[in-house]
Amino acid sequence: MNDIASKVLKGDPRSVARLITLAENSSPEAAGAMKDIHLHTGDAHVIGITGVMGSGKSTLICELTREYRRQGLEVGIIAIDPTSPFSGGALLGDRIRMMELATDNGVFIRSMGTRGMLGGLTTAVYDVVEILDAAGKDIVIVETVGVGQAEVDVIKIADTTIVVLVPGLGDSIQTIKAGVMEIADIYVVNKADRSGVEQTLAEVESLVDIACTNKDRKTPVLTTVAKENKGVVELIDEINKHKKYLKKSKMFEVQRRKRYEAELVEIIRKRLMNFIFDESKFKGKIESLIDQISNKELDPYTAADEILGKILK
Amino acid sequence: MNDIASKVLKGDPRSVARLITLAENSSPEAAGAMKDIHLHTGDAHVIGITGVMGSGKSTLICELTREYRRQGLEVGIIAIDPTSPFSGGALLGDRIRMMELATDNGVFIRSMGTRGMLGGLTTAVYDVVEILDAAGKDIVIVETVGVGQAEVDVIKIADTTIVVLVPGLGDSIQTIKAGVMEIADIYVVNKADRSGVEQTLAEVESLVDIACTNKDRKTPVLTTVAKENKGVVELIDEINKHKKYLKKSKMFEVQRRKRYEAELVEIIRKRLMNFIFDESKFKGKIESLIDQISNKELDPYTAADEILGKILK
Repeated sequence: MNDIASKVLKGDPRSVARLITLAENSSPEAAGAMKDIHLHTGDAHVIGITGVMGSGKSTLICELTREYRRQGLEVGIIAIDPTSPFSGGALLGDRIRMMELATDNGVFIRSMGTRGMLGGLTTAVYDVVEILDAAGKDIVIVETVGVGQAEVDVIKIADTTIVVLVPGLGDSIQTIKAGVMEIADIYVVNKADRSGVEQTLAEVESLVDIACTNKDRKTPVLTTVAKENKGVVELIDEINKHKKYLKKSKMFEVQRRKRYEAELVEIIRKRLMNFIFDESKFKGKIESLIDQISNKELDPYTAADEILGKILK
Repeated sequence: MNDIASKVLKGDPRSVARLITLAENSSPEAAGAMKDIHLHTGDAHVIGITGVMGSGKSTLICELTREYRRQGLEVGIIAIDPTSPFSGGALLGDRIRMMELATDNGVFIRSMGTRGMLGGLTTAVYDVVEILDAAGKDIVIVETVGVGQAEVDVIKIADTTIVVLVPGLGDSIQTIKAGVMEIADIYVVNKADRSGVEQTLAEVESLVDIACTNKDRKTPVLTTVAKENKGVVELIDEINKHKKYLKKSKMFEVQRRKRYEAELVEIIRKRLMNFIFDESKFKGKIESLIDQISNKELDPYTAADEILGKILK
């Protein structure tokens, strides 16, 4: 077995961090290690947490993590939201919360936000989930902002997806309708000490009533005040209930299979795109095709045919 | 020439709508027509408008469009934000504005929001821009919400990108820092009749000062009250100035070349992924590989190698 892989399997934080970096950079060494660790994954429960900016999801993640730690569980946190406090923009209260977590060996925090024309974020997230899982984290939390195609796609890898809302933010209801409705396993109305909480609850519950007709599980709607640690234990209970539901209904296998399918798609996509656009043997050809497209001597579809003809069997 | 292509070139709205639908569905007929129209594109000025929910960017787009119409120009609008009023969630005031535009033959509005594991949104947007350009639209406006990897990537096709902010929304400044700073050609502080406008202006201008050191063009910061049509003519002046700047500095060709490169990448990506995942000859193989991954008999990286070995020369 690959040396870094065996260290990751022992939970060594430095090796975990190093393998994540290698995976983010699509290093061939990472592929080798990822092969070795895959057989030791599948035990971590992956929780996706999404919500608009200002919904307090980072604070909620801190409090969830502290509670899981009290229960003796190890936690990995992957923050994909570029505006997340985990990614650097922390307010003082959050920073203190995070500092406590950052010095705890049972917690591993990683923020990601790479952007590039050839994509790459999504593949790396799959890898990071597998790495943290292999390193013995019982819970892996993936945080994304609840808007954006790539971000919604990413959260689909979660076993349990939590959509975080706040009272009085009409926008958040609009956001649910626009994209995250179908992915929510649990709704949390955070900052529930604010005025307008009853109205937000009523709005979410009526959405749930419409969406969950003829379903054997109704999406629960919880309230929390994360910064005072209110409702956090109840949220963990609800996550555990959802996990049991997944196992009992065989949805767990279906969902995991979907994750592996998405992962396979991403690895193939990334390899192909790197093969075509990063390998020097096509570079000159592509440059000349783009010149021809710019000069209206050629259209992009015919240019694509030319490239594909060169690489496909 | 393809029949639908020749009708699009004559500006026939039904054919425009039909070709867009064909392109969205990756129909082979669309590829043929897209080849025919490409040589007749490149004249439209593409304006990207991005901003958080509630920034009033749809109202601003309505007012910009009305002003361009007064100047005798034809306008195409592509709304990618799923929460955009153009995509259905309109408030009454917006609906009236849009109704006026919808009945104007010089305006073509299309909202898009497809999501899928194999992507597809981006390719379709490139196609829609080319179609509206070929159909004789002088201005093509692309509206996206300013958060999300795919959304930021999409707006990169614009010649001029406008980032819309509102006073008092600390979030919007955070959003700029997190992702859209590098893509803004013009900042607009909309709803400038609200309190807090001076502070927002000062914040944006200090960001601009830092970002534009050693640049030959400083990103302008404008104020508008879109719902009262204030500042809209000035914004169009600024867009025209930016267009002149692009042409003079040869940035125009560089930017267009980047757009064609991104378009080529997208077409190739989409073709390859459709080839692998939608063609029946691989379906059984892929299903069986995913089964093996789920059962820990195989890892995703080795599975990807197997598929790639089958298709690549």
